Amino acid sequence: MSDNELLPFIAQAFDQMPFNCLLGLKVTHFAVDNVQVSFAWSDTLVGNPMQKILHGGVISSVLDTAGGLMAVSTALGRFSINDKAELAARLSKMSTIDIRTDYLRPGRGNTFIASAHVIRTGNKVAVCRMELHNEQGVHIAVGTGTYLVG
Amino acid sequence: MSDNELLPFIAQAFDQMPFNCLLGLKVTHFAVDNVQVSFAWSDTLVGNPMQKILHGGVISSVLDTAGGLMAVSTALGRFSINDKAELAARLSKMSTIDIRTDYLRPGRGNTFIASAHVIRTGNKVAVCRMELHNEQGVHIAVGTGTYLVG
Amino acid sequence: MSDNELLPFIAQAFDQMPFNCLLGLKVTHFAVDNVQVSFAWSDTLVGNPMQKILHGGVISSVLDTAGGLMAVSTALGRFSINDKAELAARLSKMSTIDIRTDYLRPGRGNTFIASAHVIRTGNKVAVCRMELHNEQGVHIAVGTGTYLVG
Amino acid sequence: MSDNELLPFIAQAFDQMPFNCLLGLKVTHFAVDNVQVSFAWSDTLVGNPMQKILHGGVISSVLDTAGGLMAVSTALGRFSINDKAELAARLSKMSTIDIRTDYLRPGRGNTFIASAHVIRTGNKVAVCRMELHNEQGVHIAVGTGTYLVG
Repeated sequence: MSDNELLPFIAQAFDQMPFNCLLGLKVTHFAVDNVQVSFAWSDTLVGNPMQKILHGGVISSVLDTAGGLMAVSTALGRFSINDKAELAARLSKMSTIDIRTDYLRPGRGNTFIASAHVIRTGNKVAVCRMELHNEQGVHIAVGTGTYLVG
Repeated sequence: MSDNELLPFIAQAFDQMPFNCLLGLKVTHFAVDNVQVSFAWSDTLVGNPMQKILHGGVISSVLDTAGGLMAVSTALGRFSINDKAELAARLSKMSTIDIRTDYLRPGRGNTFIASAHVIRTGNKVAVCRMELHNEQGVHIAVGTGTYLVG
Repeated sequence: MSDNELLPFIAQAFDQMPFNCLLGLKVTHFAVDNVQVSFAWSDTLVGNPMQKILHGGVISSVLDTAGGLMAVSTALGRFSINDKAELAARLSKMSTIDIRTDYLRPGRGNTFIASAHVIRTGNKVAVCRMELHNEQGVHIAVGTGTYLVG
Repeated sequence: MSDNELLPFIAQAFDQMPFNCLLGLKVTHFAVDNVQVSFAWSDTLVGNPMQKILHGGVISSVLDTAGGLMAVSTALGRFSINDKAELAARLSKMSTIDIRTDYLRPGRGNTFIASAHVIRTGNKVAVCRMELHNEQGVHIAVGTGTYLVG
């Protein structure tokens, strides 16, 4: 499978994950070297209702999702994948080992965009940096995730 | 307000946070020195549907919630709170600074219990350790959270 | 090589690492399931000279060393190691992926003891929890380290 | 005290910290918005002697030092400091709360440069991002540190 076939298939798999659906996450950009995952404000995603800001768990969730997508696509570029069954088998062995999230500013906005890029790559482990901004470019959070990929 | 008045009020505030409701989180134990937040399995909380395990973001969310509750209650014990308006004002200034989650085993089970205890306390910052187990005692994840409390 | 042969060899390798010598670290206990690394107070290890407390980097260093030892010994228990050349080859492929240190109390004391135990183990990655206490049992720091082991 | 007086005083304080001297760290650049801390290769800073690479603890130490300097200078910009006694008093209340280090590539080189910038600032807590490169621009490690500053 070429990148042109792989990436849409992976993006679709992420879009269809039940918890990603619950959050309203969508893979809005996906290339070999960077990814964007976006979602719209929803009152169901609020932590403190007096302050009307995103719950920290929502932010960690979307950062982990963006980092995981990036780690997966980087790792798959190292293998030759023959078909979707082989791809699914490889994907099922990949997982988050650990993640750190730093909350920088209150999670306010209409649309939120998480981006990720790889900072360490290897046969077994990838490390990604993730960022969350709102539609006005306000920098809400950063994260660092370590992923098992092989 | 005494601890006997404070803790139920705080627990109720957490139970009513919209995102905690979406996840089905409930504060099932709350004392000055430890807290438990529980939730039941739901298909909507799944990451990879083939593996039928909790999304990592669900795990980070519940660990953050349990740690935040613990940090808040420790911090409030340092102040004398006169009424609910003062409590609400103090609560609105408290927030997560950063959190690390380590995923240890796949998130499988019927019921999940997050617990937290304080490892560093102070006038401005508290640090908590959190753990997630399922109903059979399987250790699924640990976390460390740093909270702004003053 | 049996555990009785392996552990002393590994401990000696750690004791002889140049930077561990500079810090005065010694492996003072080493079993399959836990490890202790100790060092004495030295004025050269001070951060702020007015406060006379250990530099945070000293604390991170000893926690990483204790966690690394634990990860290595756990991982080696999964392989059958025939001789020291094979052991050295395996050791040279093991490394720290990431580490988080939480500083809980000022680093004061005469002797400091770092301990570690494994919280996640696998063919490729191990995660350890580490603690630092002084000789009076004061809890100075905790850490979590992720190690590449296979 | 103006920035022109403050920064050299702080840099000197860091250069004179005993453990920074042991590592050979020097503040080689220091402005209000970024800082560089450098050190030369030394055989005493080695972890594994077979591989001849920096000990992970050295890397965490220099990243923490660079991040701490950045946090301190940002925080001091918020106060008006009248004299060195007041500066020393403020400095003695500032400390690292937690730090995460990600090791990206083996620590090889002749000279190593740690840089830092602030990603969250406030009256009580600052968060910095740190990077370590060698003299050829090889990216060896990144870190994120949370600092108590007020």
